[in-house]
Amino acid sequence: MITADSLHNFFYPQNILLVGASSKPKTIGYEILKSIIQFGFKGKIFVVNPKSEEILGVKCNKSIEEINDEISLAIILVPKNLVYDSLKECSLKQIKNVIIITAGFREIGEAGAKLENQITEFAKQHNIRLVGPNCMGIINTDEQVKLNATFAAEVPHYSPISFLSQSGALAAAVLNTIKETGYTFGQFISIGNKADVNENDLLEFWWKDQKTRVITMYLESFDDGRKFFDLASNVSIDKPVIILKAARTQSGTRAASSHTGALATKDDIVDAALKQCGCIRVKTIEEMFETAKAFLRFGPLKSNRIAVLTNAGGPAILCTDEIEKNNLTLSQLKEETKNKLKEILHPEASLNNPVDMLPSADAKTYREATRILSQDENVDAIITIFVEPVMINSFEVIKELAEEQKSNPKPVVIVTFPLPHFWEKWKQEGINDALILKSIEISPVILSNLYRYYQRKLNSRKTEETLNEKSRTKISNILKNVKTQNTDNSFLTSKECNSVLKALELPVVKSKFFIGKEELIKTASEIKFPCVLKISSRKFTHKSDIEGVILNIQSKKELISSFEKLKSKLKKMNILKDIDEFEIQEYFESEVELIIGAYRDNSFGAVINFGAGGKLVEIIQDKNLALAPVSKSEAMELIKSSKVYPLLTGFRNIKKIDITKIAEVIEKVSLLIFEFNEIKEIDLNPVMIKDQKIKIVDYRISI
Amino acid sequence: MITADSLHNFFYPQNILLVGASSKPKTIGYEILKSIIQFGFKGKIFVVNPKSEEILGVKCNKSIEEINDEISLAIILVPKNLVYDSLKECSLKQIKNVIIITAGFREIGEAGAKLENQITEFAKQHNIRLVGPNCMGIINTDEQVKLNATFAAEVPHYSPISFLSQSGALAAAVLNTIKETGYTFGQFISIGNKADVNENDLLEFWWKDQKTRVITMYLESFDDGRKFFDLASNVSIDKPVIILKAARTQSGTRAASSHTGALATKDDIVDAALKQCGCIRVKTIEEMFETAKAFLRFGPLKSNRIAVLTNAGGPAILCTDEIEKNNLTLSQLKEETKNKLKEILHPEASLNNPVDMLPSADAKTYREATRILSQDENVDAIITIFVEPVMINSFEVIKELAEEQKSNPKPVVIVTFPLPHFWEKWKQEGINDALILKSIEISPVILSNLYRYYQRKLNSRKTEETLNEKSRTKISNILKNVKTQNTDNSFLTSKECNSVLKALELPVVKSKFFIGKEELIKTASEIKFPCVLKISSRKFTHKSDIEGVILNIQSKKELISSFEKLKSKLKKMNILKDIDEFEIQEYFESEVELIIGAYRDNSFGAVINFGAGGKLVEIIQDKNLALAPVSKSEAMELIKSSKVYPLLTGFRNIKKIDITKIAEVIEKVSLLIFEFNEIKEIDLNPVMIKDQKIKIVDYRISI
Repeated sequence: MITADSLHNFFYPQNILLVGASSKPKTIGYEILKSIIQFGFKGKIFVVNPKSEEILGVKCNKSIEEINDEISLAIILVPKNLVYDSLKECSLKQIKNVIIITAGFREIGEAGAKLENQITEFAKQHNIRLVGPNCMGIINTDEQVKLNATFAAEVPHYSPISFLSQSGALAAAVLNTIKETGYTFGQFISIGNKADVNENDLLEFWWKDQKTRVITMYLESFDDGRKFFDLASNVSIDKPVIILKAARTQSGTRAASSHTGALATKDDIVDAALKQCGCIRVKTIEEMFETAKAFLRFGPLKSNRIAVLTNAGGPAILCTDEIEKNNLTLSQLKEETKNKLKEILHPEASLNNPVDMLPSADAKTYREATRILSQDENVDAIITIFVEPVMINSFEVIKELAEEQKSNPKPVVIVTFPLPHFWEKWKQEGINDALILKSIEISPVILSNLYRYYQRKLNSRKTEETLNEKSRTKISNILKNVKTQNTDNSFLTSKECNSVLKALELPVVKSKFFIGKEELIKTASEIKFPCVLKISSRKFTHKSDIEGVILNIQSKKELISSFEKLKSKLKKMNILKDIDEFEIQEYFESEVELIIGAYRDNSFGAVINFGAGGKLVEIIQDKNLALAPVSKSEAMELIKSSKVYPLLTGFRNIKKIDITKIAEVIEKVSLLIFEFNEIKEIDLNPVMIKDQKIKIVDYRISI
Repeated sequence: MITADSLHNFFYPQNILLVGASSKPKTIGYEILKSIIQFGFKGKIFVVNPKSEEILGVKCNKSIEEINDEISLAIILVPKNLVYDSLKECSLKQIKNVIIITAGFREIGEAGAKLENQITEFAKQHNIRLVGPNCMGIINTDEQVKLNATFAAEVPHYSPISFLSQSGALAAAVLNTIKETGYTFGQFISIGNKADVNENDLLEFWWKDQKTRVITMYLESFDDGRKFFDLASNVSIDKPVIILKAARTQSGTRAASSHTGALATKDDIVDAALKQCGCIRVKTIEEMFETAKAFLRFGPLKSNRIAVLTNAGGPAILCTDEIEKNNLTLSQLKEETKNKLKEILHPEASLNNPVDMLPSADAKTYREATRILSQDENVDAIITIFVEPVMINSFEVIKELAEEQKSNPKPVVIVTFPLPHFWEKWKQEGINDALILKSIEISPVILSNLYRYYQRKLNSRKTEETLNEKSRTKISNILKNVKTQNTDNSFLTSKECNSVLKALELPVVKSKFFIGKEELIKTASEIKFPCVLKISSRKFTHKSDIEGVILNIQSKKELISSFEKLKSKLKKMNILKDIDEFEIQEYFESEVELIIGAYRDNSFGAVINFGAGGKLVEIIQDKNLALAPVSKSEAMELIKSSKVYPLLTGFRNIKKIDITKIAEVIEKVSLLIFEFNEIKEIDLNPVMIKDQKIKIVDYRISI
């Protein structure tokens, strides 16, 4: 059965069986049953509790066996030592969807992990889909379903937003405060320890689910990052996927490990991967839900020019700061727009963007001005700010704006600071699904998220390139040869690296390899000076560490004497036996040094890195990551987002370089690591730019 | 009269006179009177309105003249064309403190500015202190005063926090929502157009004011940045000064200019200045008021090791992320602490920091665990997180924690997500001045603000250094000489710059200056090769632009031919007449290139800059600013906070350099620009590091 179908009964069950419901109030076994009943679940409810006759009006069964009906969803609440047996009984009853609320498994250590493995194993064998253990349950506020199978007392208003939380407690915090925040969602799932069902399953399920229009997830770790990436690359074209990924910092990662048992991936890879596959990464719960709501409320935001309409200067300035900080820009209003505004606004109003209408602006003025702004082709979205003044009725203003928000084809964001009584009236008589924000800072963040999403949709990910057959065969042979050497050391020698790069037809700087003095003398006549002498060794790939590089050699004589000195030094250090060959290269001072690297992450697989190389690496930390393989246009994006980019566009005495040439190198290196699973790491550093040409000067490959 | 005394009556008036109070509800003239009465002002209220007999029970006077009492504070509400006359009448009545609420002055353009200048001029002549115009008024919630002279309907609970807002509307937004946010403050002032009273006056007033313990300000511009800086350097030692400075971005600055008419200073200078003078710069209103509250609630935070205590994993991970992001660190708990925790916590609780007590933790456990953590000497502050679970009473937990917050000598921050009914009960029975946060992200930000403040207090600003008399005289003579030359151009020649730097005893690379070939030949024998040949010109200070620099000259012969080629080229370009001298310097390739610069900001005065120089300037934007003069230790801080710093501490083949030597150069350059007002800009770039020595290679000074 495909994933989407196998999860269906979690959110759309015909009936529910509670195994281990309790008759004692304030216990989880009691509160879940109460939630299900109180929220008005549309299906039948069964309860197993051998000690009670009935709980909350529901007749209790002594065992699962006893029940005659076919059960679509079981929820297990029994103590952890009884969970396995309950699962077995569910299996006998042909139940295929089970939620285990009970905690005390992987999250508490080895013994718990063992128990969890047994359960997972059993479920797999019997085609049971499992949510949990150590989770909080499931909600579906859809009118047709009305399911609150959690112990949360508060439930959100329905909207076609679906919400996954890896942490039950975080979800509890969201639900506890939902009256205050006004967040909405239809489906919610707490996946706990992810013994079976994980974020990838849900991504697939919600992709197909007709009732889901926006997907939101709070995650602490990725079960299979590469799978998530591949899936999300497709899902995000159809539906926005908004991710709050915690454990961003080192300490956060340690905290997450002890919490979920899963070791989190380095955050910079997560960041790169989410961006590349078109997900929207948010920083807070508030940003997640308000962005999700904005996707429901607004059509596409195609460009990033924002108009601000206000009755208050200060908040508009704070808003403007945030607009610029979030890569949006203030619209240049057309003269026509200003003239139209002039006709309806106070003579002392400021007609430049931000448009400050002064405190006297009333509901009608707000709405008309919003319309005028939205008709300006330089305006892509409007942020309206309203601070309630003495003489104006806030309810009327916000109601007009909310109506305009619904009808206007462009996004109309409402930020407002009304007096307290407003909200009570609004809850009763206002427009319920309007997006109204109580903070200035968040509105540009949301619009920026919208903008990035639609930008990304226009340029969604395409990678069809592969290595050509000839290159692949050559490289395959080189690697085979390395492996047959069967050393402990898994590095390629400089010569082998050089061959791999040449097989890829990359712009490697010319090298001559040789072993003894005799060969050197033969080779030397072909060499241009100044040159560089290096060791080529499987063991010592960091050549500088053993002073294995001699720069700027001016003549044949100097070269030979340098070689002899180097050799005798290596002999003294007793490592001459570890040197496979020596290498001679042309020497030059480069204008710019770059790094092109690639490595393999446990969760996300092959990753490519581009940035400033040489000594700049340490001080500017110019890491620009993407999951391999990358297309040429993705490689171009990497280059353009790097800090070293300004040096490539023509800078003082450095001429502009054709960056598509660099992009080609990045693309090929990304294909190399992607297609050859045995390669662990590739490090081209420095890649030098000299006279508008790329020259790969030093390289390391490990398998 | 000193500032502090002259402002006293604004916040502590014996009585109030309203000029232009209105009998029409929902007008400002009516609402202010209503606010004053309703809030229960302790003094007498006088009203001038020629058309009404009485308003809201207060008898109206026909004119100011008519009143017999001595008036301590007048509030002018009349239309803008009548403001000047009202002020005159106030003056006749010997009123020395006047608030002008009326708008329509500088903020609407030239005509308004003219009117405002007349008023300001009059007030100055008659020793009247003026708040406004275009402002919102004043609040003092002190029990002894009970003043709400604004048109805001909502007023905060009292606390010894004072709040200034340059924007009335922003203050209105704060006041409108104060029931929801729970922010507290005692004194509030809206300073509007700052015709007279500005942020500097208030800084001085609140510094002396016994009732003010924390100062908060929302600013859009600085009237006199240097004065603010000097004042705040002292005030911040006694009281925390928290600044929300809007108009951080270019667009924000433009928005602010059209709003207040004041041209804002570049944000990086503001940032540097606020940091240097010990102010805490915050990013949002929420951060400002919660930080202020934290200063009232908590004692000094001497170090930055934080323990997190939670009943919920997810929120603790988000919190941990923020801890690291805000330059705090997670405490390493002592074994003893863990053992003590083990005794009282659930057996499956996680004893590592964050301490996850699991949902079963009750009020008693929370409090005891907090105490245990606070006794650990590795813990400087504790963030407690409480997500209300089914079985626990949130009121009891938060009450216990709030009591612990009061009694514990270390900061105990409370972050909580209770069910909705909690807040109602808390408002009635809770501990009112407890610091309780509803967001995870803000708590580390607040602690980080506290920590930075107390750190800064330990190292508060000392600068007693001045240039020595000998240097000063020499430089003074050089500059005098430049000025007597009386050219349009205000740059020093290379030779003059060189003399200035030598007078300061700075490590300038050796230069020889000469004019003709004859002199060159004489000089050449003293020169080490390779060398550099440069022009020295008052007109062409960007030498490279006219190819006026020839690098890496290997011999005397090459030098002479280079000189002749250069000279003939300059002749052809018809600019030989603009060359004052030629200069020869030693040539070498440096290991690191730095920039040390200084310039003069309109508002903040002399500013110094340190960072990576040469071509790095553009790509790493390593700007590290401070107001001049800087002490040696401030200079050290600048160096340490720079991006180029890692290259100075020993990096690959670059040896570690003694950065106190660089600090000395920075200090002296800062004294140079500070003491010589005529200097506009100093640019030492590149300052090269070679073999652990500093060599200033190129320099420009303009006056």
